[in-house]
Amino acid sequence: MSKTPTLETLQRLADVVGEKGVIRGAVDQAPYLKEWRGIWTGTTPLILRPQTVEDVSRILAIAHETETTIVPQSGNTGLVGGQIPNDGEVLLSLDRMTRIITVDPIDFTITAEAGATLTSIQDAAEAVDRLFPLSLASEGTCRIGGNLSTNAGGVNVLAYGNARDLCLGLEVVLADGRILNMLKTLRKDNTGYDLKNLFIGAEGTLGIITKATLKLFPRPRRYDTVFAAVPTLEAALCFLAQSKQASGNRVIAFELLPELGIQFTVKHMNTRRALETVSPWYVLLEMADSTEAATETILETALEQSFIIDAVVAQNDAQRRELWALRENMSESQKYEGGSIKHDVAVPVSELPRFIAEASVALENFMPGTRLCCFGHMGDGNMHFNVSQPLGMDKQMYLDQWHKMNRVIHDIVVKHKGSFSAEHGIGVLKREDMARYKSETELDVMRSMKKTLDPKNILNPGRVLP
Amino acid sequence: MSKTPTLETLQRLADVVGEKGVIRGAVDQAPYLKEWRGIWTGTTPLILRPQTVEDVSRILAIAHETETTIVPQSGNTGLVGGQIPNDGEVLLSLDRMTRIITVDPIDFTITAEAGATLTSIQDAAEAVDRLFPLSLASEGTCRIGGNLSTNAGGVNVLAYGNARDLCLGLEVVLADGRILNMLKTLRKDNTGYDLKNLFIGAEGTLGIITKATLKLFPRPRRYDTVFAAVPTLEAALCFLAQSKQASGNRVIAFELLPELGIQFTVKHMNTRRALETVSPWYVLLEMADSTEAATETILETALEQSFIIDAVVAQNDAQRRELWALRENMSESQKYEGGSIKHDVAVPVSELPRFIAEASVALENFMPGTRLCCFGHMGDGNMHFNVSQPLGMDKQMYLDQWHKMNRVIHDIVVKHKGSFSAEHGIGVLKREDMARYKSETELDVMRSMKKTLDPKNILNPGRVLP
Repeated sequence: MSKTPTLETLQRLADVVGEKGVIRGAVDQAPYLKEWRGIWTGTTPLILRPQTVEDVSRILAIAHETETTIVPQSGNTGLVGGQIPNDGEVLLSLDRMTRIITVDPIDFTITAEAGATLTSIQDAAEAVDRLFPLSLASEGTCRIGGNLSTNAGGVNVLAYGNARDLCLGLEVVLADGRILNMLKTLRKDNTGYDLKNLFIGAEGTLGIITKATLKLFPRPRRYDTVFAAVPTLEAALCFLAQSKQASGNRVIAFELLPELGIQFTVKHMNTRRALETVSPWYVLLEMADSTEAATETILETALEQSFIIDAVVAQNDAQRRELWALRENMSESQKYEGGSIKHDVAVPVSELPRFIAEASVALENFMPGTRLCCFGHMGDGNMHFNVSQPLGMDKQMYLDQWHKMNRVIHDIVVKHKGSFSAEHGIGVLKREDMARYKSETELDVMRSMKKTLDPKNILNPGRVLP
Repeated sequence: MSKTPTLETLQRLADVVGEKGVIRGAVDQAPYLKEWRGIWTGTTPLILRPQTVEDVSRILAIAHETETTIVPQSGNTGLVGGQIPNDGEVLLSLDRMTRIITVDPIDFTITAEAGATLTSIQDAAEAVDRLFPLSLASEGTCRIGGNLSTNAGGVNVLAYGNARDLCLGLEVVLADGRILNMLKTLRKDNTGYDLKNLFIGAEGTLGIITKATLKLFPRPRRYDTVFAAVPTLEAALCFLAQSKQASGNRVIAFELLPELGIQFTVKHMNTRRALETVSPWYVLLEMADSTEAATETILETALEQSFIIDAVVAQNDAQRRELWALRENMSESQKYEGGSIKHDVAVPVSELPRFIAEASVALENFMPGTRLCCFGHMGDGNMHFNVSQPLGMDKQMYLDQWHKMNRVIHDIVVKHKGSFSAEHGIGVLKREDMARYKSETELDVMRSMKKTLDPKNILNPGRVLP
C-alpha cells in the first residue's frame, strides 16, 4: 500500500504544471482511468499533464522527496494494466508532449516527444518520403513513449524489429528528477554502458521516457502480397525460409491463419475466402520492393516442393486489402463465437509446429470441445493463441478458466523455450508468471536494477516485478 | 591498486580448471599479455583457460570471495587496452570455449560459446546456406564473446547493425559467480527488463559472456558494386539516400574514400585507380540482391542530378575485389607516409559534411601541413579520421601530439552530436574522454550499474569508467 500524498504535496505537484495542466474532477479524469476494454478501472487524486521535460523533472523531484507514487501514462492502450493507477497513485499523462522535433530524410531519423501518437510519427516520416515501420492496431491513439516503454511489436517485426530496434536515442527523467539525455541519432557509438535499453520495455518502472530519436527507412515502392494454402506447419516454415532466401530478405510479413479462423472471419466479418482450396492452414506473405518475376519463381518452387498447395497473388491494391482483411478481422470475428481466452506468446520460429501440436493436445485434455484459433506472426514466432469456448457452454463459466488455461499453455510455451509475453508486457496481469518462469538470478538482477534506479519505489510500483 | 592474490587463492583458482587449463610460465603467457600492435604489455600471476560455464562460475565465485581481480580475454584483438592485465590481475581466457552449439537454418539462428572465432561462426552459418553478417579485419582471430563485449561494428552495419543488433540471447556469469541464463532465440519477448544489452558493450566489466545466440540472414546471391566519383560530401549523401530508396533498402556498404587516400593506396599497395576522373571524394557502394537494371537506373539518375560525376560497376568478382582493395588497403597504405594519428569517430550521417569541414580547418590550425585521410563507413556516419604527418617532420615528434590532436577532433565530434568512440570502445585508452564528454548524470548511472553488478570491483577494474 503506498503512502497517500498530503494536500500540500498535491498542490506542489499541481503548481509545476499550472491549473491548465491538472485534471481533478471525476468526469474529466474518467477517460484516463479506464482501460479501453474495461478490464481495469482506477482512481487517482490528481492527473498531471506536463508540457516539457523540465516539468516532468520537477514533478519527479517532488515525488521522490515526498515518496509520492506515480503512474506514467501514454496513449492508454496497454493490455496488461500497467497504465492505470490501482493504489491511489498520481497519474502523469504525456498527452500534452506531442511535438515532432526534427525529421531528417538524409539521416533517416526522426526525433519526437514521448506523447506524439504513432500515427503522427508515421505521417511525419511519410511527408519526407520515409517509412517509420512500427505499425499496430492502436496506432492512431497509442503514443511513442508508451510504444517504447512496452517495446511494442506488430506485423512487420520480422523485417524491421521491435520498437527497441527502431530507437537510436532517448531522453529519460530518472526517479529522482534528474534528466538523463541520451538523445542521439548515431548508428555507431561505443562509449560506455548501454543504458537506453534498460528503459525500453521497462513499462515506466525505471524512469519516464520524454523524448526519442528513431530510425527511418526507405518507403517501399511495391508490395507483393500472396495468400497461400499450406498443407502443414512444417511446410509453412519451409515456405518462409524459401521466401526469405529467394526474395533477398524482402519478406516483411508472414502471417499464419487457421481454417477455423477463416471460417469465423468469412461468417461474421463480411469477407470472402481467398482460395477455394481448403487446407488446415494458410499463410499471408508480403514482400516489399520485390518483383513480379521473383514472386512467380517463389510460388512455382513452393508448389513443386509441396510447401504450398495453392496460392493467389494480389493484382492490385484493392485485392491486397481484401487479403489483409482476412487477417485483420480474425481477432474481431472471434467475438461472435462466444468467450475467447487469449495468449500472447512466442516460441523460436522452428519450434512452432511442435509447440502448436503439444499445446493443442493439452488444450483438449484441459477442456474438451474448445476451438483453437491460433494465428499471427509466424515469421517471428509470435502467436495469438486464442481459444474460443466449446459450443453451448456458458460464456462466463468459460472465461473463469482464463488463468488456469493460461497456466497450461504458458507451461508448454516455456518448455519450448518461448515467451509468455511476446508483445504486451507484464504490467499487473503477468507478475505471477514472472515469479513462476523467470530464474531467481534473473529476477534478482531485475530487482537490483529497480532498487538502484528507483530506490523509493515511486515509479509505477507493483508493475513488472513479482 | 588491486590486492595481490595469495598463493592459496591462486591455487584454488588453478584447481578449478586443472593444470591443463593454466598457463604460468612467462614464455607461454607472452601471447596473451601483448596487445598485437605492441602498445600495451601486461603481467599476470596466472592465466586461466576454463572449458565450461561452470568453470567460469567457480572461478568468479572464488575471485569474488577473495577480492581477486580478473581480466577476461577473448581473441586479444581489442584496440583500447581492455583485454591486457595492467595491475597484476588474473587473466581469464575464453579460448578453450569454442563450440558451435546449434545452427538452425529454419530459425535463422546460431548458438555458440564465447570463444568461438568470428570466422568459425560465419563458416557454420554458410554451411547451412545462411549469412552471419558481422565482418571485421580481425575475424580469423577475434572471438564472438569479445565482439559482443565490445559491440563490434564493421563495414555492413548500415544494413545489418552492430554486434548488439545481431544478438538474441546471452549466457553471462555474474561477478559473484552466479550464472545468468538469457539464452533465447526469440524475436519477440517482453518479459521484464532487458538485461542482455547491459552486458553487450560493457567490455567485461559487468559480467563475463560465456554463450550467445545470434541472428542469421539469407545469403545474398548477387552483389552490385559501384565505385563513383562524387563532387562534394553533400552530393555523396544525396547519392546514399537515393541508392537506399531506389534499391529498396538493399545498400549493404557505402564507404567514403578521399583522393589523397587513393593516391596513397595506388602508390604503396600495388593497386590501380578505378576511374580516370579525379575528384576530391569517391564512394564505394555495394548492394545485395539488387538487379543490373536497378543499378543502371540508380547511376543514370545520380549522374543527371550531379550526385556523382563518374562511375564504374564491377562486372565480375575479380573486378569487385579490385574495387574493394582500394578501400581495404587504405589504412595500411598510410604506414608508408610516416606517422598517422587516428580517430575512431561517428557523427549523425547528415552532419558528416559540416563535421569534416570544421575538423579540417581545426586540424590545419592545430598543425599546418598535416595530410588528412578521412575515410570509412559514410553509410553509418563512422569515419576513420586518420591524419598523416606533415612531410619531413620527425615521426615520433608527430606521434607525441596524439592525445592533443584527439582532444581537438573529439571536441568537434561532440559538438556535432557525435561519438568519440564509434567502434573500438573505451578500455583504458579513452577513460578521460568519458570524464570530459559524458554528462555527470550519465556517468553516475553507469557507476551505479557497476556498483550493483560488481560491488567488489573485480571484473576488468579500471576499464570503461573514469
